[in-house]
Amino acid sequence: MDLTSVMEAGFVAYSDGKVVVPPVGELLFEEPPGDTHIKYGYIRDDRVFVIKIASGFYGNAALGLPSSSGLMLVFSQKTGFLESVLLDEGYLTNVRTALAGRIAARYLAPKEVKAIGVFGTGTMARMQVTYLSTETDCQNIVAWGRSDDSLRRYCDDMAALGYHVTTTRDAREVAEACNLIIMTTPSTKPLLMASQLQPGTHITAMGSDTPEKQELDSLILARADIVVADSLEQCLSRGEIFHAVRAGHIAAAQVRELGGQIRAGTRVRTSQDQITVADLTGVAVQDIQIAKAVCERLSS
Amino acid sequence: MDLTSVMEAGFVAYSDGKVVVPPVGELLFEEPPGDTHIKYGYIRDDRVFVIKIASGFYGNAALGLPSSSGLMLVFSQKTGFLESVLLDEGYLTNVRTALAGRIAARYLAPKEVKAIGVFGTGTMARMQVTYLSTETDCQNIVAWGRSDDSLRRYCDDMAALGYHVTTTRDAREVAEACNLIIMTTPSTKPLLMASQLQPGTHITAMGSDTPEKQELDSLILARADIVVADSLEQCLSRGEIFHAVRAGHIAAAQVRELGGQIRAGTRVRTSQDQITVADLTGVAVQDIQIAKAVCERLSS
Repeated sequence: MDLTSVMEAGFVAYSDGKVVVPPVGELLFEEPPGDTHIKYGYIRDDRVFVIKIASGFYGNAALGLPSSSGLMLVFSQKTGFLESVLLDEGYLTNVRTALAGRIAARYLAPKEVKAIGVFGTGTMARMQVTYLSTETDCQNIVAWGRSDDSLRRYCDDMAALGYHVTTTRDAREVAEACNLIIMTTPSTKPLLMASQLQPGTHITAMGSDTPEKQELDSLILARADIVVADSLEQCLSRGEIFHAVRAGHIAAAQVRELGGQIRAGTRVRTSQDQITVADLTGVAVQDIQIAKAVCERLSS
Repeated sequence: MDLTSVMEAGFVAYSDGKVVVPPVGELLFEEPPGDTHIKYGYIRDDRVFVIKIASGFYGNAALGLPSSSGLMLVFSQKTGFLESVLLDEGYLTNVRTALAGRIAARYLAPKEVKAIGVFGTGTMARMQVTYLSTETDCQNIVAWGRSDDSLRRYCDDMAALGYHVTTTRDAREVAEACNLIIMTTPSTKPLLMASQLQPGTHITAMGSDTPEKQELDSLILARADIVVADSLEQCLSRGEIFHAVRAGHIAAAQVRELGGQIRAGTRVRTSQDQITVADLTGVAVQDIQIAKAVCERLSS
């Protein structure tokens, strides 16, 4: 089973209107601060439905515990019966997010990647780079981070995997060296500016998944030749596209949806000089597809 | 641990505004028809939060399976971590519902119960009667049902528990013989009419939990001296009170909330001739309390 194909099929089903996704459920806590989100849905005429519960409690670090936790529940669409409890603690969400980044690169990245720019030094900054190995042979990374410590750890860990990593705290250096850039931070202020960008660059923005978060100068989307959303509907209320549309820099009608591009089956980029942006906010169909894939593997 | 006290404390916390209950999540299915509901919430400053998932797939009977299924998940309010998965298949919902009926009878039923009237012959028609044994010694039941078969089974099963059961398909016979009446059906049309009621009767309506369902003639609520809701907010959008308010038979301001009555600690009924109605639509705090009680018992 090829997980990338499974995820591509999910995006296509979503863009074809075959996925039922009710509004996200949310519980907020104040003492200690935390939030729990319930994402759920199903593909019509599929075998199962999935409920994902994900929590972030940011005081956990002080207790020596990870801030994220969670699970996925898989139920039969024929009987409503619970079939599987996947105690993945958020791992499968990371996998499905990294797969979406791989797919975005497949359809949008330039043919020759000079260097991969990475904003952030956390789990996705590592995982996404390794997931890109199916799309490019490039092993040169320019990593941007806020702290020398975390940059050093990132550099060591990625070097152990065979990557050549240069670190910087200057976004301009990333933009000058790299034509495939991955944004993986929870920033609420733009980290990369339109004026810094080189022609022929593709950016996948995976960090911004709420209305507050923003990693890209909205003018980048105005300057981009092609802007792709994982979910147009969702990207109009959160993420980079939300900010750019609200600021009047782009119109919603200019944005293409990833599933439609996958269905077309060809690279979206038509010239190596185009600037392209993929905005990935995370769609429930990704959770459905990854949970199904795990269950099928377990039962085969 | 006394489960009734646990449930009473939950209703008091709810009426005191200490319970956070977001809107219910819902997934609807067409082929086969089914629905899944996600209820979740927490009591402020409590140790845990609870997510309950309950499904009803009405074609399951043809497969030899129960139509209902479900589970409860208990998480730490301090870390967000999953603590327990209770695969109760709806049993704990039945327990918390039966406990609510017991509490309603405790505060509202007449001192001397002549006979217990029961509309319906299913799980709650059985369970509620046995849960009432803490509130009354009465073992006389008049059971109303739609089918002779189900009435016969109900009669046999309850006789085996020591009850004296008379069965009928005429609501008037129930109303004439009984001064404590339990409504446990999924009816969408009134089964019991205001003209049939005797003074001094208490009715607990537990069957109607959606806007469509209705077991009582709305004029019963108009004629009642006291109307109590498990959740005033919820009862204005579903259940018996919803229908009576919409028809203009009662005003929302006349309705009391169960938690407030429990906090007062006295019987609500001030005379043995009063007609009283408790409308129980099921509140998330009941799920929170029952799940907590099970987990505490398991870990003690």
